[in-house]
Amino acid sequence: MKIIVFLCFQLFSVILAENVKYSFETKYIDMPLDHFSFTSNKTFKLKYLVNDTFHVDNGPIFFYTGNEGSIEMFAQNTGFMFDIAPQFNALLVFAEHRYYGSSLPFGNLSYTSPKYLGYLSSTQALADYVYLINDLQHNYASNRHLKKLPVVAFGGSYGGMLSAWLRIKYPGSIVGAIASSAPIWQFKDLTPCENFYRVVTNVFEALGGKKCSETIRNSWSIIRALAANDAGKTQISKLWNLCTAIKTSDDIDKIVNWLLNIYINLAMVNYPYPTSFLVPLPANPVREFCGKINSFEYKDNIGLLKAIGEALTVYTNYTKTAKCNDIGGSMGAIGIQGWYFQACTEMIMPLCSNDLDMFEHAEWDFKKYSDDCFKQFGIRPRDENVPILEYGGKELGSASNIVFSNGLLDPWSSGGVLSNVSKKLVAVIIPDGAHHFDLRAANDLDTESVKLARLFHVQEIKKWLDKYYPNNLSVPTVTLKQKN
Amino acid sequence: MKIIVFLCFQLFSVILAENVKYSFETKYIDMPLDHFSFTSNKTFKLKYLVNDTFHVDNGPIFFYTGNEGSIEMFAQNTGFMFDIAPQFNALLVFAEHRYYGSSLPFGNLSYTSPKYLGYLSSTQALADYVYLINDLQHNYASNRHLKKLPVVAFGGSYGGMLSAWLRIKYPGSIVGAIASSAPIWQFKDLTPCENFYRVVTNVFEALGGKKCSETIRNSWSIIRALAANDAGKTQISKLWNLCTAIKTSDDIDKIVNWLLNIYINLAMVNYPYPTSFLVPLPANPVREFCGKINSFEYKDNIGLLKAIGEALTVYTNYTKTAKCNDIGGSMGAIGIQGWYFQACTEMIMPLCSNDLDMFEHAEWDFKKYSDDCFKQFGIRPRDENVPILEYGGKELGSASNIVFSNGLLDPWSSGGVLSNVSKKLVAVIIPDGAHHFDLRAANDLDTESVKLARLFHVQEIKKWLDKYYPNNLSVPTVTLKQKN
Repeated sequence: MKIIVFLCFQLFSVILAENVKYSFETKYIDMPLDHFSFTSNKTFKLKYLVNDTFHVDNGPIFFYTGNEGSIEMFAQNTGFMFDIAPQFNALLVFAEHRYYGSSLPFGNLSYTSPKYLGYLSSTQALADYVYLINDLQHNYASNRHLKKLPVVAFGGSYGGMLSAWLRIKYPGSIVGAIASSAPIWQFKDLTPCENFYRVVTNVFEALGGKKCSETIRNSWSIIRALAANDAGKTQISKLWNLCTAIKTSDDIDKIVNWLLNIYINLAMVNYPYPTSFLVPLPANPVREFCGKINSFEYKDNIGLLKAIGEALTVYTNYTKTAKCNDIGGSMGAIGIQGWYFQACTEMIMPLCSNDLDMFEHAEWDFKKYSDDCFKQFGIRPRDENVPILEYGGKELGSASNIVFSNGLLDPWSSGGVLSNVSKKLVAVIIPDGAHHFDLRAANDLDTESVKLARLFHVQEIKKWLDKYYPNNLSVPTVTLKQKN
Repeated sequence: MKIIVFLCFQLFSVILAENVKYSFETKYIDMPLDHFSFTSNKTFKLKYLVNDTFHVDNGPIFFYTGNEGSIEMFAQNTGFMFDIAPQFNALLVFAEHRYYGSSLPFGNLSYTSPKYLGYLSSTQALADYVYLINDLQHNYASNRHLKKLPVVAFGGSYGGMLSAWLRIKYPGSIVGAIASSAPIWQFKDLTPCENFYRVVTNVFEALGGKKCSETIRNSWSIIRALAANDAGKTQISKLWNLCTAIKTSDDIDKIVNWLLNIYINLAMVNYPYPTSFLVPLPANPVREFCGKINSFEYKDNIGLLKAIGEALTVYTNYTKTAKCNDIGGSMGAIGIQGWYFQACTEMIMPLCSNDLDMFEHAEWDFKKYSDDCFKQFGIRPRDENVPILEYGGKELGSASNIVFSNGLLDPWSSGGVLSNVSKKLVAVIIPDGAHHFDLRAANDLDTESVKLARLFHVQEIKKWLDKYYPNNLSVPTVTLKQKN
């Protein structure tokens, strides 16, 4: 389970491919391959998107720190930045993360060996953003009295971690960061490893009722027992309408992981309105899922599996067009490989499951994790402490101007910053919010709590910018206040 | 001139080889070669020295961030740390900078190609220190109530830059830094490039009188004119007792650089007591040098060169044992090559000379600098902005707990932090101090200003530590106060 689990972080990014709403100019910048060593002068083309529709005079740059996927996907799903750009006269920039989308330093070779893939890291990505920001700050400054434009960073999920770390490590490059659903404390000893699955369990129990979470809790041993023989494997394959019947014990692990990811994803995308991702989903999908479980009066183990099979259609076949369920889908996509590599080098996020949640028992085993990584990539994680040493862990007393927002329905809130660290490092809680809900465009069905969170973001951004302009500029401040 | 000039930064470190006074245990730690990319899991042995004579209970770690040379040299010349260790119960650690001394990641191959040498960078060195500090913090904590020992960083010159940057980039790893003579602003546009040579000129004028600086100022054109023909070259070689007579125009540049470095070094090591470095020197060597110039009643150009030749013996032959002057000495040493490489990649410190100082006119020409670097190493500096983007330049508002100390006789004070940036980022000026004077051991001939500077350091270190202990420890604070 362990190696597969971090997938969900990635999966969510992949499934964010909604309808295209916003338009951009696509640009590229020559980027040093290695910002920290000097074995060569090699560069590559890093992609970024620019929308200057709302940019006026010395207006700031709103900069999205791209995460593990094509940048267009994040740009199309971060409507909040578009919603607030006009009142700030802001230039919108979305930067692609190296080794994802079109920003492949070695083209088709990029993923073929650690020799090429090794330059995929969060530290290199942050340095890319600093380099690009410096370029933009000077190039888009229309008024020669302002030496460089102020920049506010935005990011969700791993992108949110990057936006926070950008401010922590490079406070000279950005005035502040909105870090949404950023589990910067999902690292060794900073958060109990069992918290993640507890949140998922709580969400199902709170929104779907005890019967729903108990059904899932009881399902694992039933699946394992039934799948122990060939007849049982066939029965499960039919019950759940799998495209390819399960045959080996590896297949059983695969189906368990498939279910695990669906439950996690249902919690992560539990928005109050229908969304159309890799799979289209109804509003409040966890409630929908559990509604089906609850209405199904099962009496035995097979009945329980049937109930789950019925409920799964909420996720797997909401549009009723799927013919069967492919439990291995999208496992080989390049973006996923990239995130696997990051999880095997820097992003070592211990997850475990104990008997207080609705999942199978699973210990966190760094040794096994490291061995699996070596098998897959020929590279081991150096040390579980690496991300903590690099980014400071919980010792953030020197940092400032970051808003950490978390929805409590989001499993990744387990590793998030849930209370204020200081006056300048503040936490926003969205009790009924899922994964980076606040970065989405305004919607009629938005809850009050997400509206409040967005208002808070706007106020903080104003504070940071108001401080920047009068300190550094002898010309009148931009029209922020008049437009408010 | 430009390429040669940054040598002096290095030269000073090399000449710091005084008598051995302090003893250490020599240790090694397995260090990842590359902290920021993952092309391999290669490690190397990083050397560090430990002295635990004064370490008691949960006493802090005083950590010297080694610079461009063997760590023993710095350990033997940073007596201040030994002087104050007892009152803090401190463990003393001196860490060697990768690619210097014995810490060669590829052994004899380390300097043979950018492929090997490319991992020499300040960012990698800082990450080495963070990694080592984490190890020490846990291994030397004798009391299980204190999770990890607090660390104070010390450094002088480039080592001072590293200690400041360590606190700026990794505030979770150290509680504060004493950064002595650290020219962290000797980068593009942060400091006028002509300041460095102005300081040297001012020192000679203030301590040695107008005649001294004017003699130097007038010497350059005389040297160039005389050396234009072979007879003149021979004459100079004899006048200044050179081991090898100058023959080519390259040799003329070499002799000019030799003089330049002597003048710079005289200012840098202008201590009030005799010091015994690569060359032994009297107390106040600038005054000695200029005293000889002033007592020499020269009447023509040759007389002027004779006066300089006589004065140079203060630096080149104080012990009267040298037979001749080797103007190319120590140019090929591995430490110097290392610093050359760093100056060609990250540490791009623009220096120039205009007609207001006593040196030859020289523009700062980044293009030529870059070309020279490419010729020498096959690597170009990426951008003059690199060190500013990485370390924040003058935007240090988020940083805290750093003391920047500078002696005003030190040419490198030109790029130093000479006034308080904030309440927690403070500057200490030693008006009559040379290069990192305050880090030296106490001496009967110490000036009042350096004594005050050291007292200030002790007070600041106490403040940082007092804050650390009660916040993080439920056992009684160490005996800092009783011993004060």
